[in-house]
Amino acid sequence: MSQPAYDPDNVFAKILRGDMPAHKLYEDADTFAFMDIMPRGDGHCLVIPKTPSRNILDVEPASLSAVAATTQKVARAVMKAFSADGVTVQQFNEAAGGQVVFYLHVHIIPRFDGVSLKPHTGQMEDQAVLAANAEKIRAALGSA
Amino acid sequence: MSQPAYDPDNVFAKILRGDMPAHKLYEDADTFAFMDIMPRGDGHCLVIPKTPSRNILDVEPASLSAVAATTQKVARAVMKAFSADGVTVQQFNEAAGGQVVFYLHVHIIPRFDGVSLKPHTGQMEDQAVLAANAEKIRAALGSA
Repeated sequence: MSQPAYDPDNVFAKILRGDMPAHKLYEDADTFAFMDIMPRGDGHCLVIPKTPSRNILDVEPASLSAVAATTQKVARAVMKAFSADGVTVQQFNEAAGGQVVFYLHVHIIPRFDGVSLKPHTGQMEDQAVLAANAEKIRAALGSA
Repeated sequence: MSQPAYDPDNVFAKILRGDMPAHKLYEDADTFAFMDIMPRGDGHCLVIPKTPSRNILDVEPASLSAVAATTQKVARAVMKAFSADGVTVQQFNEAAGGQVVFYLHVHIIPRFDGVSLKPHTGQMEDQAVLAANAEKIRAALGSA
């Protein structure tokens, strides 16, 4: 096991620093939630800790606990926002584990009966669609 | 959103009650970890809370936090036990979200460069293989 060191030059760190835009959903002292711009399903969003870490192998337990709490909040919100039938939560570690951006993140994907996950094509979603879905999730978070 | 109620008649509750066997990996006051008997990869294991819940939608935050902490411990252990290149963490909610057993559980799957996840066929792994992999993970947990 040779866990590589955290590299601050990644897109999620840039989003947290305000150097890149994101469709923000939620923020508290320890976590930040926003839309995945290459969604594998409508409403696919992400939760990250504010304290930088590469993935689950190096994250501080308190930071991971905060991410779990926000993941639950957002999972409940997407169920409500999209009248979803279920929700898939995924967290990938290292390239072999499916990780593409090397900043700890949890995927939250609302699911619907009979609808498979879309493949991860690298195709970016239309910004207006992302903005509209983000608004639905923020509304559900606000009324939770 | 119509979250069904928790039903105690599920296999993970039976494992916790000692009514069904499992290849145990780890246990603390709040969580229990054991081998998945239908692994999607060598060393695929599961973490569950001791306090019953159906999934992430109804679990108590403290219970979810404990599951997250144990997930990290086990993820680090499988990396070491199998000299894995990565680890995939998944958590499914409701049938549409991929959930089969309706007791909150987190999947932890060691991953290797160039090796895809096996499909979920419902095929049970050989008990001797599960026992041998469990022993490797327990050894890695013990020396972590």
